[in-house]
Amino acid sequence: MGTEFLKIMDCDEASEIIQDLFKQNLKPQSEEIKVSESYGRILFEDVYSRIDFPPFNKALKDGFAIVSSDSFTASEESPNTLEIIDFLEAGDVSDKIVEPGKCIEISTGAAMPQGADAVVMVEYAEKLDGKVNILTNVTPSQDVGLKGSDISQSNLILKKGEVLNPGKIGVLLSQGFETIEVFKKPTVGIFSSGNELIVQDEVLEYGKIYDVNGGMIKSAAVSCSCDAHFLGIMEDDYSIVKDKISSAVEDVDILICSGGTSAGLGDVLKHVLDELGDVYIHGISVQPGKPTIVGVIDNTIVVGLPGNPVSALMIFNAFVLENLSRLAGIDKDFSLDVVKGNITKRIHSQVGRMQYQLVKVDGKNIVPIFKDSGAIFSLSTADGFVKIPKLVELVDEGEEVEVYLFK
Amino acid sequence: MGTEFLKIMDCDEASEIIQDLFKQNLKPQSEEIKVSESYGRILFEDVYSRIDFPPFNKALKDGFAIVSSDSFTASEESPNTLEIIDFLEAGDVSDKIVEPGKCIEISTGAAMPQGADAVVMVEYAEKLDGKVNILTNVTPSQDVGLKGSDISQSNLILKKGEVLNPGKIGVLLSQGFETIEVFKKPTVGIFSSGNELIVQDEVLEYGKIYDVNGGMIKSAAVSCSCDAHFLGIMEDDYSIVKDKISSAVEDVDILICSGGTSAGLGDVLKHVLDELGDVYIHGISVQPGKPTIVGVIDNTIVVGLPGNPVSALMIFNAFVLENLSRLAGIDKDFSLDVVKGNITKRIHSQVGRMQYQLVKVDGKNIVPIFKDSGAIFSLSTADGFVKIPKLVELVDEGEEVEVYLFK
Repeated sequence: MGTEFLKIMDCDEASEIIQDLFKQNLKPQSEEIKVSESYGRILFEDVYSRIDFPPFNKALKDGFAIVSSDSFTASEESPNTLEIIDFLEAGDVSDKIVEPGKCIEISTGAAMPQGADAVVMVEYAEKLDGKVNILTNVTPSQDVGLKGSDISQSNLILKKGEVLNPGKIGVLLSQGFETIEVFKKPTVGIFSSGNELIVQDEVLEYGKIYDVNGGMIKSAAVSCSCDAHFLGIMEDDYSIVKDKISSAVEDVDILICSGGTSAGLGDVLKHVLDELGDVYIHGISVQPGKPTIVGVIDNTIVVGLPGNPVSALMIFNAFVLENLSRLAGIDKDFSLDVVKGNITKRIHSQVGRMQYQLVKVDGKNIVPIFKDSGAIFSLSTADGFVKIPKLVELVDEGEEVEVYLFK
Repeated sequence: MGTEFLKIMDCDEASEIIQDLFKQNLKPQSEEIKVSESYGRILFEDVYSRIDFPPFNKALKDGFAIVSSDSFTASEESPNTLEIIDFLEAGDVSDKIVEPGKCIEISTGAAMPQGADAVVMVEYAEKLDGKVNILTNVTPSQDVGLKGSDISQSNLILKKGEVLNPGKIGVLLSQGFETIEVFKKPTVGIFSSGNELIVQDEVLEYGKIYDVNGGMIKSAAVSCSCDAHFLGIMEDDYSIVKDKISSAVEDVDILICSGGTSAGLGDVLKHVLDELGDVYIHGISVQPGKPTIVGVIDNTIVVGLPGNPVSALMIFNAFVLENLSRLAGIDKDFSLDVVKGNITKRIHSQVGRMQYQLVKVDGKNIVPIFKDSGAIFSLSTADGFVKIPKLVELVDEGEEVEVYLFK
């Protein structure tokens, strides 16, 4: 794309382009993991039952496995006496056959012995020496879980896209699955850039500030099921940025940089992207976050967020999170939860651009947090943001708004 | 407590006893972790600001740092010309002092040089050779982020119990925190017991079934922020169970066993608990899950869940999850989300015991899943459960109910 001039882009158009770039360059991948480690992961394939469950006719109660017709005339007043020929615990198998007049003492979960078709619960039996008095009548299959009655082999049991919770994990384990194919977590690399940035274990010299975006955007990527790595702080120098980016794009699906995107001094990311790949967006008509850049290098999406942390987090939430979530297998219209409420103070917005307003949610009251976007501390109380579309100049006190909740 | 006979306990009473046992035996612990790895973790302490933020008077725009009074009469028609004595990028410090008639070119984020008290944006300045025409007037502090204006030192910025999300992580990083004290994840050990159980990589012999509870209860514990480990399948043998349990309680906060709790054959857990510690609950008046056992060995809570997976998961959700969550620092009345809706089919319940009914949530329709509790497959579709209190005999079609949603 070279030196082509890119004009500030409309918010909806930018959103569509970013979505298309993700779809064109990145396909969801799968990985095989242990079922017992799969909590919260998302199935990559439909799963079919491998075996009948229960896998055999199973005693559902502790008692006596009998031929049911032996009990038809039995009652407390007139018990039927049967000979006990064996004793079966769960997991055991008997080679004896239950014939009329005989029975096998059985535990819950044990396989029904040959010949027997019902269980008389221990509460309705009176055990004697080698014999038992049956005190009630039972019907065929009574207290027996028939083979395949819960699920028979080759049935669809879980669908691609389902999020694995303990119950679904239990279903997979009952079918003997040791491993399962789930959506692979997209890999995200994160760079911060800016000569003013230092890491948290350094002494704060005058004029420097601690890097926020590295750890913050990493955790934001983790929040949408990504495998995210902070790759360090880059000096705002063309050849350094070029080297680091060209090496990083080989290892990750998405590379997120922040800083170095302002229209003022130190605008190197745009030029590096131009040289190594293509720039599709340079500037979005939004507040905050206007200097956002999006490009592609060898099928790796490269996003340049503003250096300001509040702006960076907002742009991540508004333009990146949804696409990362979709790549991670999360199948929702929008990945942030939305709540409704009424704004407690009038918000002014500049016509012609989309505005993201940080808010605190207090029941049905939506309280706007008015601070300049350099005010990082507002993030300690903000619950989410309200979108004010480009043609809206004013959201009046009391108006109902939708809040996109931060993860 | 020895051989004391424990009678089947009322659900509410059991719930209270379990809560008390957790409180008496286990105190929440903390651990220090990296802030950049703390997504979703819970703060163990109130956090106070360490530094003023911004840590210095900071330029909020690209432009020229001036003495504001130098601009008071400036306009496009009648600009004021100032000498440029230095150039400051973010992170740089100048040893020059801005006096009237002079200025320093400055980038967003750079520390304001001595003497200057305002920034004229680059859009309102006309740069000449070594000089600049100031085309507008600015007030003192205009486009300057004053030291400490966002947050000053020693203020409460985050409270104990807050869940760390990207924004809060950003706030901590901006204050230079590299590590932070969070609630330590409670350690949970899980045993399955039953001679019928085999692990997923074994061949399914007749009479055997795959162990479900090991991996399922592990993932349920992970869902409430625990560090959970499946310790294997125990043979249903007194001395084996005793050895394994007495060794495991040394390593974990909570030990969860399943199976071996039925009133029938193979009831060894109760006797082992009696010998090694104290049994507080043996049997709860609930359906399913009646044979639940709760005891304590050397301050480790030992819970014996029913072997049946549906019953085991239900009892875990109804009696254990909430206590584990509280120990993990999750400060909510109840840890499961609740939705309301109307039941689509009449549910009968036995008076005198609490019943947990598995349901599927379909918008406002709450669909009961009627299967015997051995039917593991019901867990692939169940969204949660409805509690039917002990004195309720019938929930009629269309009645409004609360559903406790599985995690």
